[in-house]
Amino acid sequence: MAANKKNGTNTHQAGAPSNAQWGGRFAGGPAAIMQDINASIGFDKALWRQDIAGSLAHAAMLAKTGIISAGDEAQIRKGLTDIAAEIEAGTFDFSTALEDIHMNIEARLSERIGEAGKRLHTARSRNDQVATDFRLWVRDAIDGLDAQVTALLNTLCTRALEHAATPMPGFTHLQTAQPVTFGHHLLAYVEMLARDRGRLSDARRRLNESPLGAAALAGTSFPIDRDMTARALGFDRPTANSLDSVSDRDFALEYLSALSIMAMHLSRLAEEIVIWCSAPFSFIRLSDAFTTGSSIMPQKRNPDAAELIRAKGGRITGALVGLLMVMKGLPLAYAKDMQEDKEPVFAATDAAALSLAAMDGMIRDLSVNAQQMRAYAGAGFSTATDLADWLVRVLKLPFRTAHHVTGRLVGKAEARGIDLSQLSLEDMQAEEAGITKEIFDVLTVDASLASRTSFGGTAPDNVRAQATRWLEALSSTTPRSAEGEKA
Amino acid sequence: MAANKKNGTNTHQAGAPSNAQWGGRFAGGPAAIMQDINASIGFDKALWRQDIAGSLAHAAMLAKTGIISAGDEAQIRKGLTDIAAEIEAGTFDFSTALEDIHMNIEARLSERIGEAGKRLHTARSRNDQVATDFRLWVRDAIDGLDAQVTALLNTLCTRALEHAATPMPGFTHLQTAQPVTFGHHLLAYVEMLARDRGRLSDARRRLNESPLGAAALAGTSFPIDRDMTARALGFDRPTANSLDSVSDRDFALEYLSALSIMAMHLSRLAEEIVIWCSAPFSFIRLSDAFTTGSSIMPQKRNPDAAELIRAKGGRITGALVGLLMVMKGLPLAYAKDMQEDKEPVFAATDAAALSLAAMDGMIRDLSVNAQQMRAYAGAGFSTATDLADWLVRVLKLPFRTAHHVTGRLVGKAEARGIDLSQLSLEDMQAEEAGITKEIFDVLTVDASLASRTSFGGTAPDNVRAQATRWLEALSSTTPRSAEGEKA
Amino acid sequence: MAANKKNGTNTHQAGAPSNAQWGGRFAGGPAAIMQDINASIGFDKALWRQDIAGSLAHAAMLAKTGIISAGDEAQIRKGLTDIAAEIEAGTFDFSTALEDIHMNIEARLSERIGEAGKRLHTARSRNDQVATDFRLWVRDAIDGLDAQVTALLNTLCTRALEHAATPMPGFTHLQTAQPVTFGHHLLAYVEMLARDRGRLSDARRRLNESPLGAAALAGTSFPIDRDMTARALGFDRPTANSLDSVSDRDFALEYLSALSIMAMHLSRLAEEIVIWCSAPFSFIRLSDAFTTGSSIMPQKRNPDAAELIRAKGGRITGALVGLLMVMKGLPLAYAKDMQEDKEPVFAATDAAALSLAAMDGMIRDLSVNAQQMRAYAGAGFSTATDLADWLVRVLKLPFRTAHHVTGRLVGKAEARGIDLSQLSLEDMQAEEAGITKEIFDVLTVDASLASRTSFGGTAPDNVRAQATRWLEALSSTTPRSAEGEKA
Amino acid sequence: MAANKKNGTNTHQAGAPSNAQWGGRFAGGPAAIMQDINASIGFDKALWRQDIAGSLAHAAMLAKTGIISAGDEAQIRKGLTDIAAEIEAGTFDFSTALEDIHMNIEARLSERIGEAGKRLHTARSRNDQVATDFRLWVRDAIDGLDAQVTALLNTLCTRALEHAATPMPGFTHLQTAQPVTFGHHLLAYVEMLARDRGRLSDARRRLNESPLGAAALAGTSFPIDRDMTARALGFDRPTANSLDSVSDRDFALEYLSALSIMAMHLSRLAEEIVIWCSAPFSFIRLSDAFTTGSSIMPQKRNPDAAELIRAKGGRITGALVGLLMVMKGLPLAYAKDMQEDKEPVFAATDAAALSLAAMDGMIRDLSVNAQQMRAYAGAGFSTATDLADWLVRVLKLPFRTAHHVTGRLVGKAEARGIDLSQLSLEDMQAEEAGITKEIFDVLTVDASLASRTSFGGTAPDNVRAQATRWLEALSSTTPRSAEGEKA
Repeated sequence: MAANKKNGTNTHQAGAPSNAQWGGRFAGGPAAIMQDINASIGFDKALWRQDIAGSLAHAAMLAKTGIISAGDEAQIRKGLTDIAAEIEAGTFDFSTALEDIHMNIEARLSERIGEAGKRLHTARSRNDQVATDFRLWVRDAIDGLDAQVTALLNTLCTRALEHAATPMPGFTHLQTAQPVTFGHHLLAYVEMLARDRGRLSDARRRLNESPLGAAALAGTSFPIDRDMTARALGFDRPTANSLDSVSDRDFALEYLSALSIMAMHLSRLAEEIVIWCSAPFSFIRLSDAFTTGSSIMPQKRNPDAAELIRAKGGRITGALVGLLMVMKGLPLAYAKDMQEDKEPVFAATDAAALSLAAMDGMIRDLSVNAQQMRAYAGAGFSTATDLADWLVRVLKLPFRTAHHVTGRLVGKAEARGIDLSQLSLEDMQAEEAGITKEIFDVLTVDASLASRTSFGGTAPDNVRAQATRWLEALSSTTPRSAEGEKA
Repeated sequence: MAANKKNGTNTHQAGAPSNAQWGGRFAGGPAAIMQDINASIGFDKALWRQDIAGSLAHAAMLAKTGIISAGDEAQIRKGLTDIAAEIEAGTFDFSTALEDIHMNIEARLSERIGEAGKRLHTARSRNDQVATDFRLWVRDAIDGLDAQVTALLNTLCTRALEHAATPMPGFTHLQTAQPVTFGHHLLAYVEMLARDRGRLSDARRRLNESPLGAAALAGTSFPIDRDMTARALGFDRPTANSLDSVSDRDFALEYLSALSIMAMHLSRLAEEIVIWCSAPFSFIRLSDAFTTGSSIMPQKRNPDAAELIRAKGGRITGALVGLLMVMKGLPLAYAKDMQEDKEPVFAATDAAALSLAAMDGMIRDLSVNAQQMRAYAGAGFSTATDLADWLVRVLKLPFRTAHHVTGRLVGKAEARGIDLSQLSLEDMQAEEAGITKEIFDVLTVDASLASRTSFGGTAPDNVRAQATRWLEALSSTTPRSAEGEKA
Repeated sequence: MAANKKNGTNTHQAGAPSNAQWGGRFAGGPAAIMQDINASIGFDKALWRQDIAGSLAHAAMLAKTGIISAGDEAQIRKGLTDIAAEIEAGTFDFSTALEDIHMNIEARLSERIGEAGKRLHTARSRNDQVATDFRLWVRDAIDGLDAQVTALLNTLCTRALEHAATPMPGFTHLQTAQPVTFGHHLLAYVEMLARDRGRLSDARRRLNESPLGAAALAGTSFPIDRDMTARALGFDRPTANSLDSVSDRDFALEYLSALSIMAMHLSRLAEEIVIWCSAPFSFIRLSDAFTTGSSIMPQKRNPDAAELIRAKGGRITGALVGLLMVMKGLPLAYAKDMQEDKEPVFAATDAAALSLAAMDGMIRDLSVNAQQMRAYAGAGFSTATDLADWLVRVLKLPFRTAHHVTGRLVGKAEARGIDLSQLSLEDMQAEEAGITKEIFDVLTVDASLASRTSFGGTAPDNVRAQATRWLEALSSTTPRSAEGEKA
Repeated sequence: MAANKKNGTNTHQAGAPSNAQWGGRFAGGPAAIMQDINASIGFDKALWRQDIAGSLAHAAMLAKTGIISAGDEAQIRKGLTDIAAEIEAGTFDFSTALEDIHMNIEARLSERIGEAGKRLHTARSRNDQVATDFRLWVRDAIDGLDAQVTALLNTLCTRALEHAATPMPGFTHLQTAQPVTFGHHLLAYVEMLARDRGRLSDARRRLNESPLGAAALAGTSFPIDRDMTARALGFDRPTANSLDSVSDRDFALEYLSALSIMAMHLSRLAEEIVIWCSAPFSFIRLSDAFTTGSSIMPQKRNPDAAELIRAKGGRITGALVGLLMVMKGLPLAYAKDMQEDKEPVFAATDAAALSLAAMDGMIRDLSVNAQQMRAYAGAGFSTATDLADWLVRVLKLPFRTAHHVTGRLVGKAEARGIDLSQLSLEDMQAEEAGITKEIFDVLTVDASLASRTSFGGTAPDNVRAQATRWLEALSSTTPRSAEGEKA
């Protein structure tokens, strides 16, 4: 959306007399077209903090290695600090003619401090500079999202503990299968999001190498110290190949892949929230804080946030696909195609951050209709498996045989419009003579739940133990940013 | 990027002390999170012209059918016209609390004209309103892009005519295959882009039905006249099913599909330009207007615009995938997920418009190195097919046999490091006794080109005829907008 | 999956001692690897009918134009007819060494008829041959799918007519909004699928040009008659540019785009079927024919077909993305990358055909629980809009004011746990003094439905008229294949 | 492609009389349609080894925990071993009516051993069974691909060492930028592929948990030992939540993400090979083993394998997108949609394995045209940066100033059609008086290369050191399968 700043308005507002507008859009001649498509300052100014941090580290290293003087470095440091203050204060004048954030800052630096500013770009290139800045940005984004995921995990576990024994129907194919507990259901998402943290963490570890010093593509003849700049910027080490350093965007792709999978998880929970809020389900209720009304139907309580989270998964995957396709088949080293890496990453980060925040809010907010959930947990022959398992365990029937016996009993009950527990013992024995009245003990929802004690099973004690274990693990996690600062 | 306006800055600028910032991002409590994720005014204000046009048509119809008074309608008309002027002038105060462009305008209308403003929303809903606005926007975008494609077609044909007889190597697998002309090569893109126009035109025709009057999802009990509003807005007819009217986004998907295919075409031409500009090829040269330099390598002439066009194909496909995924599996009718339709369409439109403009500029700009092209057109045994065809035509060899004879002759020439035309007649006759010295007439580039007179073939006369035919056809096309106005 | 036929088995069955197997996979040396990745006969043999049809047309033209003799053509015709019989009978021996279907057939032809067979490939190339074959295949697939869509449209309309007046809750955000009829709901999908037919038809029209005769990329010097082969193969005309002819895969992409949008429609209906079949909804029931049981839960009635249809939308979009990415940035003319076009198209066609057939079966099969639907249609203040509209229509309140009055009445009813129609007249008048007892007439489901008479609205008479109109239109459509034959 | 085995043939071969065929396709009635769309045996038989391994582990555990008798377990073990032999021998009769590999094997087991066979399915479900089988399959695939990547890394490093000092032009924007060495260029791909190994390894570690024992979705009441089965199958531990266990496909998605990024890397190298093989570049030559000819142009040497590798990146990304979209918005727990997970994973694995094998073959095969590479390495003012750096280093000019001086000198040389080193000292001094004749020492390709000694830079000594370090590291890697066996 490079064009947004200048022409985008025209495009988006194309209206009644649209062709006149459109026609004029590119009337500026070649130079204007080239600037429109080429300039990235419209979006890459988001990298200003990273760009200044990188330049500070670079200048300190240039001075330490004697490539520039200590005096020049002091001036550069002062100049960049002042520029940071200007940007923070909103008084910095971003120029499209200067193309990108790197040139904008460097030009301003020379404007402020003169000669010394012109020495900053020694032994580096925009190619390694932008690679450095963007890695730092993605690393920060990972840290931010990791904190959000951790918060959501805490929320899910807290509510899972609260509802460790609240029965709900466990569905497969959205058909009632077996009773589970609402806490157990929430813990399924805890597993998913914990894997998401793992993927983000692996991506962070893999990206945490410094491309600074790769210069344009071949390295440099100046006696630079890449370890020093790497350390200063919190990187684990410098990258090992200069061509790869400037042409690699794996870190963005791996990050977007991790976000796509995470967004898919959130889309599943969002879908469930939408379904649970529907009138026929009425499993949960969202407060006014997380529902919206309608312009025409005053009674509506729409779970908009859940729907938007569900949708954002599509957008994030779109960003991943876009960037994979951009990178496909590019010869080494840097190509301008790679400038199209930032907007998808920015947009996907925004979508992910909003989704996590809104999901956290909804999970805290939702109130459970335990009565409704319990009613459906016990309906639909949901304890048929328990009956079959009893036949295996007590009567020693082979499982397949027990399965068939149970199937006939379900058929009988269904034909009469009653539940399994409402069949008489005689009805049961007509199908399988060995059945005793003990069978009725396994046909209740609570008995079914309590019996699922296998590791990972839904028995309330299991759920409590798992939720507690997770809450402890989450509280003891050293926040990643702390590590980052130590590094 | 709903969050961009307010929080996006924080996200994107996440820097050194990032976690503090991030942590604070969603500190505003549920209401703030909900507003952040829910509000669309940040991007849907782009629909303001369409929204006002739709409201004017709606109000006129309400008055005509007696649902509101003529006086109310006059006030509404005046009020909306004034609001349009405010927005145009940049003095309109967009409010995130009012969520979207529709509510922003309606609220301002009531503010300006009171009671009458509150009657505007009679017999409609935001669901049909946004569907109408967005269709109008996409229709305008199609018209704008169609004009740009037409301009590019003219440019391609003009340059094709100029180079109807300029030989260049025709490649398959990027290996020299047979001589073609540069004009013929450009006309291949004319065929592609002409199909793109066809797809855009079909998409326009299919979208050109008015959803206005579908109301929330079920139609309305007011005696509205949907034909009247449809006509007023340039639609061919009203949509036929109210549920479909508010839950359909086919028009956006079909549009994005057409753009994806078009962007793929442009990516191919862009790739060729990048390759042709490389030092070893040096087939063409772009002027300073369409190249950029390097921050570290002063000699570079980088074809950035071509690379960006190549990349934007990825971005556009990403937009298509995102929206297909958003729509997948959505129950009827309107769901908030569908709000995620606009940003992909806006971004893809921008990318397409920039790509077309920049491509048009480059095609006008490029200068052809005819000598270099001709040299490669004749190298690499490019006329081997001509030799084989001569064997078939004159000596009546079966094609497969001729193919094998030619293969042996190529092998002989290759082994000696010479070209086919440098083999002696005796060398030739050693492989196939019937060969006469006439064979040498078909081994030149120009003879090869001139012989390809089959329909669609590369013979210069063919190319001239095709380019001329296209230029005439393009000049006689009534601009679509004119039709639109007549409708 | 070129490798499937030979090596795929190894891959897929990689099990316990997997590494040994894997390691051996590519032990065959360069030639084996090259053949594995290069050969397409494993999948492109599906094109055999098209390949033979194309060769017959080509040979007839070669004879007509005197390029080969009538005797040769007769032999070729006989040979190809015999080969078709062999393939049909399953006795043809496909050879991987011969790479693809084109070489397999041509080699067999020479084997059978000798010299004449070697003349078939005169004035053509595999590049135009495969482009021709694949277009014919896609055209056939479009015709087959069009017939299936038409059948499904008939089924939907028939059931819509049957349920023109069956009330169901109209949802937005899956929240009850306003009553609609089940017939009206089904007709929404009729609109979608009718647009799908339109897209398929446009794609067919656009692809229906013959690339045969473009030869390798430059056309040919033989005096071929491309109009004659185009006509013989049912094409509208020959393609106009030889480079484009062999490097174009738009027809496959446009086809996959149309299928992706259609599959998205089917995924929405499939999602609704899954939700409607859930115990809390119980809006419909699928018979045993369209449900499956469970290996462990004998009571399950899983709507597997609906779930698979929902999923296949993802697979089809994956095929589209894959091919768009394959084509991105390819220089002209033919590149071997384009061989990766067939499997996505074959797989997507299969998925679409299965989805349409299964959806048709389910729509025929499903039985409606009208009582349950009606109950939910009337619950949740679904007629609040009717109340608001009454206030506007009868009391002349501005809509926004009426909206607020209704909102307060809904709040009052909700607080008491009753429906709007259970509020007393006094309760109503306390909010708006002008309300009379006539208000209660608009608060019933049937009154609400009957009042939605605007064009496209859900009034049962509308629905009946629309369904009838569609059924008539569908019955009068000349089947496309008939047109094709005439052409 | 469930339908392929039975109906796919019809679909794909749809030819001349296609509609008749198509029409008959689904004539089998509901049962036939349902079987067509539902059965997965056509592709999931690839899981047979994993299925049998899982059943053996399950049965051993059932016996150990006393759930079945030792005698039953012995019979089951014998039966499954015999079935494995049948499948291996190709005598097993796969039945579509039995839907999938799990039911096929279980049914055959009961057929062979009777009663005991019916006890095998105790305390498990197809939901956890398929999750287990598929994880095992993906784990095997990762191990196989990891071995292939390692082989390719070795090949790249070996050739990099060989060409550590072979100059080639380093490109950015495909414009000559600075000299690099061919070895350095190859090592860039070593870095990429090493990251790919890391991603595969992380994916393997994360997937390596056993879902077996999660049963349908809720766990089981049988006293199973999930640690025992996990250990037996080489998993690190059992999964912790039964709902997640059966509804998780992260392992497939993360695997496909890793493959997509790897395939992108390979597509870049493939693109370079295609370009390097073109006549104007002629940087490398592939032997007959890795090129193909043309049916019409006997002289062609097409790098088909490189093109197919480039294309397969698109196919693999298509598989990823397809599965992400399948999983989007699915409510827990298992849904039949998830059956659409296997074909994309199988196809992507095949594509990746073929691509790695073919790339390894090509890298071994290619011969370098060192003379041509060196010529281009020194042309196009490729040492302009060296000149600018000299001005900074020796004359202490600020970099920006040096950049401008160099720019003017390049301009001067370009205008005269000579290279920088051909400018006279006077020419140089006219722009910058301080320049001495030492300047000419930095303007040669070899001097430029040798000077780039910064870490990661292209100096031949650096390249040798890196290649050697990599080769040592690769040789000392314990093959993963060994670890797997120990676990």
